Amino acid sequence: MKDYDAPPPPPDYDPVSEEPKSPMLAAINMSLTSWTEGKARIHGPIMPPIVNRSGLVHGGALMTLLDAAAGYAGCWCPYPGRVRRAVTLSMTTNFLKAGRAGFLHTEGRLTRGGRSIFFATAVVRDDAGKEVASGTGVFKYMDGSDKLYGVEREEEA
Amino acid sequence: MKDYDAPPPPPDYDPVSEEPKSPMLAAINMSLTSWTEGKARIHGPIMPPIVNRSGLVHGGALMTLLDAAAGYAGCWCPYPGRVRRAVTLSMTTNFLKAGRAGFLHTEGRLTRGGRSIFFATAVVRDDAGKEVASGTGVFKYMDGSDKLYGVEREEEA
Amino acid sequence: MKDYDAPPPPPDYDPVSEEPKSPMLAAINMSLTSWTEGKARIHGPIMPPIVNRSGLVHGGALMTLLDAAAGYAGCWCPYPGRVRRAVTLSMTTNFLKAGRAGFLHTEGRLTRGGRSIFFATAVVRDDAGKEVASGTGVFKYMDGSDKLYGVEREEEA
Amino acid sequence: MKDYDAPPPPPDYDPVSEEPKSPMLAAINMSLTSWTEGKARIHGPIMPPIVNRSGLVHGGALMTLLDAAAGYAGCWCPYPGRVRRAVTLSMTTNFLKAGRAGFLHTEGRLTRGGRSIFFATAVVRDDAGKEVASGTGVFKYMDGSDKLYGVEREEEA
Repeated sequence: MKDYDAPPPPPDYDPVSEEPKSPMLAAINMSLTSWTEGKARIHGPIMPPIVNRSGLVHGGALMTLLDAAAGYAGCWCPYPGRVRRAVTLSMTTNFLKAGRAGFLHTEGRLTRGGRSIFFATAVVRDDAGKEVASGTGVFKYMDGSDKLYGVEREEEA
Repeated sequence: MKDYDAPPPPPDYDPVSEEPKSPMLAAINMSLTSWTEGKARIHGPIMPPIVNRSGLVHGGALMTLLDAAAGYAGCWCPYPGRVRRAVTLSMTTNFLKAGRAGFLHTEGRLTRGGRSIFFATAVVRDDAGKEVASGTGVFKYMDGSDKLYGVEREEEA
Repeated sequence: MKDYDAPPPPPDYDPVSEEPKSPMLAAINMSLTSWTEGKARIHGPIMPPIVNRSGLVHGGALMTLLDAAAGYAGCWCPYPGRVRRAVTLSMTTNFLKAGRAGFLHTEGRLTRGGRSIFFATAVVRDDAGKEVASGTGVFKYMDGSDKLYGVEREEEA
Repeated sequence: MKDYDAPPPPPDYDPVSEEPKSPMLAAINMSLTSWTEGKARIHGPIMPPIVNRSGLVHGGALMTLLDAAAGYAGCWCPYPGRVRRAVTLSMTTNFLKAGRAGFLHTEGRLTRGGRSIFFATAVVRDDAGKEVASGTGVFKYMDGSDKLYGVEREEEA
């Protein structure tokens, strides 16, 4: 993504991660809005397709948000042009209350980093600040990503 | 959806559940293909938006499939015009291998039904039959849905 | 426990819960040390049988502590002679670091109470305050126990 | 433990693992009864301290059994004098029915082995074969233990 000078960013370009937007997050109209050391925030409206016919937010959407925010929290990298990647090993979500209207505010937090493995939690809140769902996950860094320095960002198609 | 007489079912009508298709499943191109006592199957292609730039299936999509299949498994109702509804209380997913190409085959199974609470598991397999992800969940029946007879299907807008 | 008049409380009587001590906690030398609204603390030494031959605290002991502390947190009852009871439906534990020496300090916290179901979390820390393990659980109140007023304490044999 | 000729095995010696018995399992009167490739069985009576005053098996005991059986399942090593060691990263337990009397039969099964990480499940059944609790865990092999050949058994005090 280095000679990105002339053309404007494509529509799914994410200004916070400086990467193409996650297709799954894009599909549910959610955006990464903040990414700092050990923390990540995702924000977006409650609208189709994440609401079902009863107007409730679908559990799959909540788990998608929690997984993404927790994963980002563990993969923050301060070095330009470099990234850290991880895969989720296990994720548990508790569904605390129904999400119905307005926006969803998701915050992920690195609980414990380590060599190869990290733990992170995340919570989805509604506009009133009430917890809608919370999750905890175990993640495994991909090779080279357990260091803050990460790996060179590949030019992905 | 009450004066449903003349026009054909809309494109998101699900022939297996005989209900409008789940918007979240529709958004990821997945369909309920079988629903019998204590079992449900969901099937669909690995294609955007459930794949990320590396060609891997997104964890959020896998959790969506597991939650849906496990939930359906506990809510089977043999009586025409009647349904059973439940909410997920907790869901744990283990990510076993990367899903890359072809189709995803998800099967949910009721582990233990009970008064008000049921437990169900689900597994997502690839075309080779390898387990991509497995999940276990705890669900709570909505009022009246713990009985096989369920409740009258509401005409939902 | 009905003719409990003359003799002093047996050694496994718990002064905080004002009930006989949990046999499982007693077996691992752990005691409930604080119990207030939505919170419970359990404390005790790292000694056999909870350490294995390598000197590491056994995961089963950590899960026992987390389950107990989280369960207590949801069952606090301010009325003398009355109690609240619950069963654990599901519990997830993340093992964050090895526990090796000194004491274990466990704190449970009610996350969300509700009708019939409550969610609670707990964390085990070592003497340095480092998190050794954390857990989240889903619990179901037994009949009458979802109200703060609880039920009359039965005289259990 | 190789020149173990003269003295009889100590009381906590486990004939199946050919190692000193796990102190935590010993404390709850449970024994490893079978250990084969990818499988392990643990067996023992429902008696104090694993029953509470209501006669129900304590959740902590069930989680201890599930963790141990699942962990053993992933650490089977066919080479004399050699062992494989792992730590649990995360464990989720669903409590399916009350365990009350007789014996508990726990079976662990390796779901997916891998480099450094393995997944395993376990189930605790009562004498009637009914599932009392089921668990799924993520484990991390200690150095050298991801290979079937394992590491030399240390002489542990």
